[in-house]
Amino acid sequence: MPGNLTLARADDDLRRPPTTSWLVEATRTVSYTISVSRDVFSPDNPSLADAGTAGADNTRRRFVVIDKTVHEIYGGLLDSYLRHHDMTAQLCVLDADEQQKSMESVMEVVRGLDEFGVDRRREPIIAIGGGVVLDIVGLASSLYRRHTPYVRVPTTLIGLVDAGVGVKTGVNFNGHKNRLGTYEAPATALLDRNFLRSLDRRNMSNGLAEILKIALIKDRELFERLEGFGGPLLDERMQGATPETEAAARDVLRRAVHGMLEELQPNLWEGRLERLVDYGHSFSPSIEMAGLPELLHGEAVCIDMAMTTHIAHRRGMVTDAELSRVIDVMHVLGLPVHHAGCTPELLVKALVDTTRHRDGLQRLPLPVGIGDAAFVNDVSAEELRLAAEAVAEVARAVPSGAE
Amino acid sequence: MPGNLTLARADDDLRRPPTTSWLVEATRTVSYTISVSRDVFSPDNPSLADAGTAGADNTRRRFVVIDKTVHEIYGGLLDSYLRHHDMTAQLCVLDADEQQKSMESVMEVVRGLDEFGVDRRREPIIAIGGGVVLDIVGLASSLYRRHTPYVRVPTTLIGLVDAGVGVKTGVNFNGHKNRLGTYEAPATALLDRNFLRSLDRRNMSNGLAEILKIALIKDRELFERLEGFGGPLLDERMQGATPETEAAARDVLRRAVHGMLEELQPNLWEGRLERLVDYGHSFSPSIEMAGLPELLHGEAVCIDMAMTTHIAHRRGMVTDAELSRVIDVMHVLGLPVHHAGCTPELLVKALVDTTRHRDGLQRLPLPVGIGDAAFVNDVSAEELRLAAEAVAEVARAVPSGAE
Ligand SMILES: NC(=O)c1ccc[n+]([C@@H]2O[C@H](COP(=O)([O-])OP(=O)(O)OC[C@H]3O[C@@H](n4cnc5c(N)ncnc54)[C@H](O)[C@@H]3O)[C@@H](O)[C@H]2O)c1
Ligand SMILES: NC(=O)c1ccc[n+]([C@@H]2O[C@H](COP(=O)([O-])OP(=O)(O)OC[C@H]3O[C@@H](n4cnc5c(N)ncnc54)[C@H](O)[C@@H]3O)[C@@H](O)[C@H]2O)c1
Repeated sequence: MPGNLTLARADDDLRRPPTTSWLVEATRTVSYTISVSRDVFSPDNPSLADAGTAGADNTRRRFVVIDKTVHEIYGGLLDSYLRHHDMTAQLCVLDADEQQKSMESVMEVVRGLDEFGVDRRREPIIAIGGGVVLDIVGLASSLYRRHTPYVRVPTTLIGLVDAGVGVKTGVNFNGHKNRLGTYEAPATALLDRNFLRSLDRRNMSNGLAEILKIALIKDRELFERLEGFGGPLLDERMQGATPETEAAARDVLRRAVHGMLEELQPNLWEGRLERLVDYGHSFSPSIEMAGLPELLHGEAVCIDMAMTTHIAHRRGMVTDAELSRVIDVMHVLGLPVHHAGCTPELLVKALVDTTRHRDGLQRLPLPVGIGDAAFVNDVSAEELRLAAEAVAEVARAVPSGAE
Repeated sequence: MPGNLTLARADDDLRRPPTTSWLVEATRTVSYTISVSRDVFSPDNPSLADAGTAGADNTRRRFVVIDKTVHEIYGGLLDSYLRHHDMTAQLCVLDADEQQKSMESVMEVVRGLDEFGVDRRREPIIAIGGGVVLDIVGLASSLYRRHTPYVRVPTTLIGLVDAGVGVKTGVNFNGHKNRLGTYEAPATALLDRNFLRSLDRRNMSNGLAEILKIALIKDRELFERLEGFGGPLLDERMQGATPETEAAARDVLRRAVHGMLEELQPNLWEGRLERLVDYGHSFSPSIEMAGLPELLHGEAVCIDMAMTTHIAHRRGMVTDAELSRVIDVMHVLGLPVHHAGCTPELLVKALVDTTRHRDGLQRLPLPVGIGDAAFVNDVSAEELRLAAEAVAEVARAVPSGAE
């Protein structure tokens, strides 16, 4: 354990200010793996049974938290899997939606966990579900005995490319999204896009918005993949009906995860406030609040991106052609570029809020062409008004969700 | 941010086991200061007003969580202090005892915090109280927006030498002590022994038990200080009625904190299971449970230490003279060396429990003389029986708490 203990001054002689003080310093390394796996519930795939254990003296007792819908669809497969691998599992089925994403759900998980009892060195918790389940179980894991390893098995596209790969956990509180949470890396995450086959179209689009974000800020090739295959990826739920769409699905997923991790890894605890992955997330919290329950997170993110692409366009950072390619892809992915609640007033207020959270500077990522971005601190109310008008115009021309 | 992102294999070719995987690695440095301060509520002492801020653009808004009893005694002083320093504070008075040390109390704190609103860069939470308040606020701070800085002002001896100086937070859950918690360093801790002047004698003894622990495992001089001044330190609540007892109080506190930090710093997240500070804490959790509500934590720790000193004595690691000096100091500090609930059966069961928590090995610290210790893994049921008999014998000769 690198670090220091420094006794600053040993002459505690009652003078003020403090005359004895210690500086405690220590360094912690966090490491975890994320693996692409297929058919995690297929009996001959040992990934899930071995996940998060050294392997050897794995006791095969597991506390499994699973999304209710996922359990309805895949519960039988999971049961067979557990039986095949001689695992004794306690299932905790969570009726998880954004409304239930609360500390009460976390307590439900720790209560079950405490009754089941786990050996922290050998019996990682398994979380199977979308971002809601992953965030709840992550928080429960970080609280239980101050840390109990957990394995993530995301089952939504948001889970696969976003909630499943970072270290954030959280629940909503007092009307605020993710107001309570921790940073807690999973032992490992298994990414299996097979789960997407049962996901509804809208939740696919929702995840594609986060993938588009990565494309816009840093991966032009990923953007081109979405341009070329966005429709089929959405229709086929990334299951690869043809060799071409299979290759596209695989590549899109790999690039999205890789790009996300490249951004997260150097700033895992968010000490740095200039975060490219905040692209699309400057105005979207307010848009989401204004649009709820109609708007999903990714939809609000897309509206934010459409708007900020317009701002970048007016600033000459994005060409006419690039702008229309971006808006076209948004349509192809089934995402809205505008919402009635997204007024200039709301945008101004949103930027004030965001600026406060970013310690007094806008630190607003804006796209530079396609696949690159830059931070700016001087977006004006007038620019917001013009951008809001522009997207409203686009939305009038092409109704939301149309292709 | 040091660390790595490794893409293990890029050939995601559908073969199982997983063919694309990432290893995410990152390093985080935690650092905090602990300062000895006197009269933290004295208007001319800026320590508390400045604590946990860069200083400069300190907005002087503070959310202050304070123990009810401490508020009753020191509330007036605190108010004057805040007024003198032009601080706008929201007080959250916690009726904190071990029974209230629950997630509900944490939620009460975060609710107040959320309503008050804090700027995380400039407005650290202030926690004033014993270990219960510090642990609750520490947990609330680590959860609120995934980390909000907090300042610790311990007001009990346990707080000053133990709960106030490490990074652990926690609350009781489902009948288990500290079953839910986090590792969350404070921004800083201000150690002011003035608060002890109002502490009852039993809570002084309770804290002295943890100081004695440090003495026994690693600091012979500290032990000698306790031998020479234990009685007056207890009677005078470490307020130093004479120059000699003032020097002793100062030295005892400094050595206790220093010794504790030396042990904690290299193992801040408890990855290593061999911990000298676990001395006195191998049997005490079970003793405490058996003896509750009669037994305080430090009392149970002392019973454990008396017992294990006997074991060490029988093994020839502690001489006759050393053994009696140790038992004598325990009496001087007003601590029990035995409890009726501390049967051989309980001790055997306790050791099984502890062994399980230490991943299958006893890793039991035993004293070597006075001021040194060693880990053993082979303590037998017979040794436990003999030691339990021996302390019961001592306790019969000198009734608990007598001097
Ligand atoms: N921790 C992070 O870094 C992070 C990142 C992004 C999002 N999030 C969080 O994730 C949440 C959103 O995640 P989400 O979009 O996955 O929502 P979600 O977990 O609510 O899942 C969406 C819906 O899909 C259902 N579902 C899940 N898997 C399915 C499957 N395979 N087939 C059919 N239906 C399925 C669920 O029951 C739910 O109704 C938000 O709470 C957000 O805050 C966290
Ligand atoms: N986080 C850690 O590393 C750590 C270490 C040791 C103990 N702890 C925890 O600390 C708790 C025990 O701490 P504690 O012994 O301080 O208990 P406590 O906080 O309950 O305080 C003991 C009593 O003293 C009162 N009190 C506090 N300050 C006073 C003052 N200055 N004058 C008069 N009365 C005062 C309190 O109201 C309470 O009744 C336990 O819950 C234990 O788990 C945590």
